[in-house]
Amino acid sequence: MNAFDLTEHPHRRFNALTGEWILVSPHRSKRPWQGQQEDIPKEERPQYDPKCYLCPGNVRANGEYNPPYTQTFVFDNDFGALQANVPLGDFRKGELLKAEAERGICRVICFSPRHDLTLTDMEVGEIKKVVDVWQREYQELGALDFINYVQIFENKGTVMGSSNPHPHGQIWAQSTVPVEPAKETVQQLAYYKAHGRSLLADYLVLEQEEKQRIVLETDAFVALVPFWAVWPFETIIIPKRHFGNILEMNEAEKNDFAAIIKALSTLYDKLFGVSFPYSAGMHQSPTDGQEHPEWHFHMHFYPPLLRSATVKKFMVGYEMLGNPQRDITAEWAAERLRSLK
Amino acid sequence: MNAFDLTEHPHRRFNALTGEWILVSPHRSKRPWQGQQEDIPKEERPQYDPKCYLCPGNVRANGEYNPPYTQTFVFDNDFGALQANVPLGDFRKGELLKAEAERGICRVICFSPRHDLTLTDMEVGEIKKVVDVWQREYQELGALDFINYVQIFENKGTVMGSSNPHPHGQIWAQSTVPVEPAKETVQQLAYYKAHGRSLLADYLVLEQEEKQRIVLETDAFVALVPFWAVWPFETIIIPKRHFGNILEMNEAEKNDFAAIIKALSTLYDKLFGVSFPYSAGMHQSPTDGQEHPEWHFHMHFYPPLLRSATVKKFMVGYEMLGNPQRDITAEWAAERLRSLK
Ligand SMILES: O=P(O)(O)O[C@H]1O[C@H](CO)[C@@H](O)[C@H](O)[C@H]1O
Ligand SMILES: O=P(O)(O)O[C@H]1O[C@H](CO)[C@@H](O)[C@H](O)[C@H]1O
Repeated sequence: MNAFDLTEHPHRRFNALTGEWILVSPHRSKRPWQGQQEDIPKEERPQYDPKCYLCPGNVRANGEYNPPYTQTFVFDNDFGALQANVPLGDFRKGELLKAEAERGICRVICFSPRHDLTLTDMEVGEIKKVVDVWQREYQELGALDFINYVQIFENKGTVMGSSNPHPHGQIWAQSTVPVEPAKETVQQLAYYKAHGRSLLADYLVLEQEEKQRIVLETDAFVALVPFWAVWPFETIIIPKRHFGNILEMNEAEKNDFAAIIKALSTLYDKLFGVSFPYSAGMHQSPTDGQEHPEWHFHMHFYPPLLRSATVKKFMVGYEMLGNPQRDITAEWAAERLRSLK
Repeated sequence: MNAFDLTEHPHRRFNALTGEWILVSPHRSKRPWQGQQEDIPKEERPQYDPKCYLCPGNVRANGEYNPPYTQTFVFDNDFGALQANVPLGDFRKGELLKAEAERGICRVICFSPRHDLTLTDMEVGEIKKVVDVWQREYQELGALDFINYVQIFENKGTVMGSSNPHPHGQIWAQSTVPVEPAKETVQQLAYYKAHGRSLLADYLVLEQEEKQRIVLETDAFVALVPFWAVWPFETIIIPKRHFGNILEMNEAEKNDFAAIIKALSTLYDKLFGVSFPYSAGMHQSPTDGQEHPEWHFHMHFYPPLLRSATVKKFMVGYEMLGNPQRDITAEWAAERLRSLK
């Protein structure tokens, strides 16, 4: 019998950021497929769509008009999942039924007035303007007393539940720290206490030695397929310098961040010859008024496509009830992305 | 300002089984929708499909022929994500990169020789035969030295990644306990140690007092929308008697289990007038040779549809990066399901 080989044998990998394990089945990419093919609508959008509630000058569901904006535009989500004016209170029945009011603010950020673009199509300078907005929003929302975490993200493509193709992202800012960043806080804090260094800074050193999972590198950032990636072409953008949140990014880093986002999303679009759907977002330090020296800013990209523009990875039965699972290795995915440069 | 109200105000609910919180946004079901509608293929399947690799007598991808089975049929998955003969071993680089070989067995269970049925269409007596198979497989796989957890599940419908419409389920049995049942072990064990009773037995008492989340009840089982449900019409089937796994079910309970599965899936099919897609599966005690008095057998149903046969809930940006989130309350969902009886 051969020795254990990561490129060949089913195995579990540890996610150092969440403390959880995932299942990897490298041998499995050959299984037959008679199932769902995604319907990726042909992208022939006009620059301006009179029926789009995000285009400049148009009316939104609540009757307000968008300004004739020319770069970015931010507004409070008319159907936000969180609301600022929730009466505080909780519900308890025994120790098993527990609920608590949650306060928050949901915003929408239009990346561009152009209905037909995506971040990939925008100039680095234009994306830099979006980074400026992210910085401003994190600052403004995070400064509010009742906001302790600011989640900035983008759902791109109908397959990722995006309800409108106009290039836009969202912010959900709230009183409690959600489950995923809470797990990352626990892991980063334990590491920081044990070593006095940032978990992701040390992780980056390992990845730069190994090289095989790195996709792109700029002066200030590295984009790589994390060792513990779950989604087929999942990546993470990590700044080389250790800082906890977007407020600490200087102008050069913001430019660099915009540039690596554009470069990465360009590779994604090349992969299957389609505007690549994904959910992406930043994880950064809570805005709870505490110091968070353990936190290392980063951005996750979770794209669902597995083998083509129309066949995605399904996180279903086993993944929902058991464990996240993937069919190709992180190393193979990184190599495919790199080969498109 | 009003008092905090679970039916109106955004809030977090605690999942007593996993120890994690979810976000509930009761006010949000009215948001407009220009996004993806699922393509639910019209179900006009023949009783026998010569090209289906699960139909009796047909040839599978590996060249083997299915027997001319007349009730159920179980075989090792030709493209299993887990394999029994993996060389043991691990990979370590620093403390951040960790992987370990994982041994396991993946099986496929055909519920019926009929290509055109689902569990809903089968007689209780036929579903009881499937329960018999689940019992036998849990016993046989669980008895293997290297199998410490047996995950039995079904992905139903193309939208849930099912690669073949022939009625079938799967078993992934493996050496380690996956993330989700591991969380449930922690929670159930803590409760059992503190109270000397099963968490789900006590939970059921609360639900039977409150009544509003209960959907169906038989002599031996209750089907309800759990207080902490994430998926819009998520349900859980809990036996009234406390036992840890399917081996402890007697004949009457097995019949009852078959009956409640049929009744529940019939309500689902009525909800949006479509063969209702879901992933479903049992959680039960690990087969690690230890006593597990804390474990209380149950079955989860995770259906994705939200508002119609074609609009599903997307677990995307915020949900992947932050926290699971839902737009209707568990109480409202239970009432809708009950009203279809
Ligand atoms: O084994 P199948 O039916 O081919 O595959 C389906 O179920 C598996 C277990 O939940 C998933 O990993 C796959 O992504 C899904 O397509
Ligand atoms: O806010 P949107 O774009 O309407 O909605 C989309 O993103 C949200 C946040 O990830 C999800 O809760 C919704 O299910 C999804 O459709």
